[in-house]
Amino acid sequence: MPNPTAAMLVIGDEILSGRTRDSNMHFLAGELTKRGIRLAEVRVVPDDSEAIVAAVRALSKAYDSVFTSGGIGPTHDDITADCIAAAFGVTIGVHPEARDRLAAFAEARGNELNEARLRMARIPDGATLIDNPISAAPGFTIGNVHVMAGVPTVFEAMVAGVLPTLVGGAPLLSQSLTIHRPEGEVAGPLGKLATEYSDLSIGSYPFSREGIFGTNIVIRGTEPGRVDAAMSDLAELFPEAVR
Amino acid sequence: MPNPTAAMLVIGDEILSGRTRDSNMHFLAGELTKRGIRLAEVRVVPDDSEAIVAAVRALSKAYDSVFTSGGIGPTHDDITADCIAAAFGVTIGVHPEARDRLAAFAEARGNELNEARLRMARIPDGATLIDNPISAAPGFTIGNVHVMAGVPTVFEAMVAGVLPTLVGGAPLLSQSLTIHRPEGEVAGPLGKLATEYSDLSIGSYPFSREGIFGTNIVIRGTEPGRVDAAMSDLAELFPEAVR
Repeated sequence: MPNPTAAMLVIGDEILSGRTRDSNMHFLAGELTKRGIRLAEVRVVPDDSEAIVAAVRALSKAYDSVFTSGGIGPTHDDITADCIAAAFGVTIGVHPEARDRLAAFAEARGNELNEARLRMARIPDGATLIDNPISAAPGFTIGNVHVMAGVPTVFEAMVAGVLPTLVGGAPLLSQSLTIHRPEGEVAGPLGKLATEYSDLSIGSYPFSREGIFGTNIVIRGTEPGRVDAAMSDLAELFPEAVR
Repeated sequence: MPNPTAAMLVIGDEILSGRTRDSNMHFLAGELTKRGIRLAEVRVVPDDSEAIVAAVRALSKAYDSVFTSGGIGPTHDDITADCIAAAFGVTIGVHPEARDRLAAFAEARGNELNEARLRMARIPDGATLIDNPISAAPGFTIGNVHVMAGVPTVFEAMVAGVLPTLVGGAPLLSQSLTIHRPEGEVAGPLGKLATEYSDLSIGSYPFSREGIFGTNIVIRGTEPGRVDAAMSDLAELFPEAVR
């Protein structure tokens, strides 16, 4: 059975302007790979309704699941929940359970559940909540789309809550080899190996350290025997390499 | 005149598997913003012909310019140049000038210009070369698409070569204010300000440091007078804030 596929949609002007360096993509990529889910595409779009709705629709249709980050806070530029509702053609309103969680969180801190904070309880019809153990305001799942916060600590906590609900695949195994030769010398034999093991993903990543050019080879697959066999053949081709 | 738009296409299994943390997106975002070019979308796709061709076509059509990173090395998984040729419906072959540069670079290091290295001289018909001052193998520009290496030092050097050839826009100015109040308390007044200054982009970014919740507000625009005016109004709303 092929591994399930996923896509990520990063929402936020601050990433595209260079103000903020996104870290959620790298985190999610690692978590999905561990569970045998193949992250097949990532898109980054600005805080713009048309762009968000179009991307959600395209990704939701093309992949088994979609993870979004960003744009679910209390301010005027937080438009993700409305865009998701629009993408699914459903209405949106204050979710009683979400409101209760926000009210309890505000009360415990002596804060008022004002209009801005209440915006964070607006959830598209038919969605289920994703817990936010950090700052209460929930994410939500609708169809195959999981909508989460952009703040990394909150995003990571939400991902931890969602992952156990997903169907994973055979774990993607990975072995790597470091060859202290430039990629241009490794490429020929490696290409032949890749043809022979076309069921595996064999990646080649050049590096240079202190003027020495080298190449890291990463072999990925779901069948342990095949990954082992390819790695043995590779190690024979480059006996001086370091596992 | 509206600012020119750009998109980025990051190509590589290693980013989507979580093995490698991309840094080129953040670098390019900052450089484009400085020149008044609005990075409007980023996509990350695997080393897969169909995905690359589809993304190049979509982005090239939708934005003024497109920057790609990754997949132009000597190994079997480096398929970007062929995909770009396919996307533009042109043939691809060894470019004499590119071959000369690779030959000179190899000779200076006592290396052989073997078949794998020669692959890096394959350039789509009608493309112009982008210099690679680090490791010789050039990038190239075809139509509105700039094709560059994924290795960050090489990517950055190539971007430095391409940027002066682009038409920039009015510089995007940015001013920020740090308010030591949670976003839920800032949101109301901020929303009114954003409506009043709808020609500007006003972003709100919550943070928490040592248990204290605060909010950074970033005001962006191209007219200095407007950005100044909005920032003055904002500072009046939150007199305790720090510029």
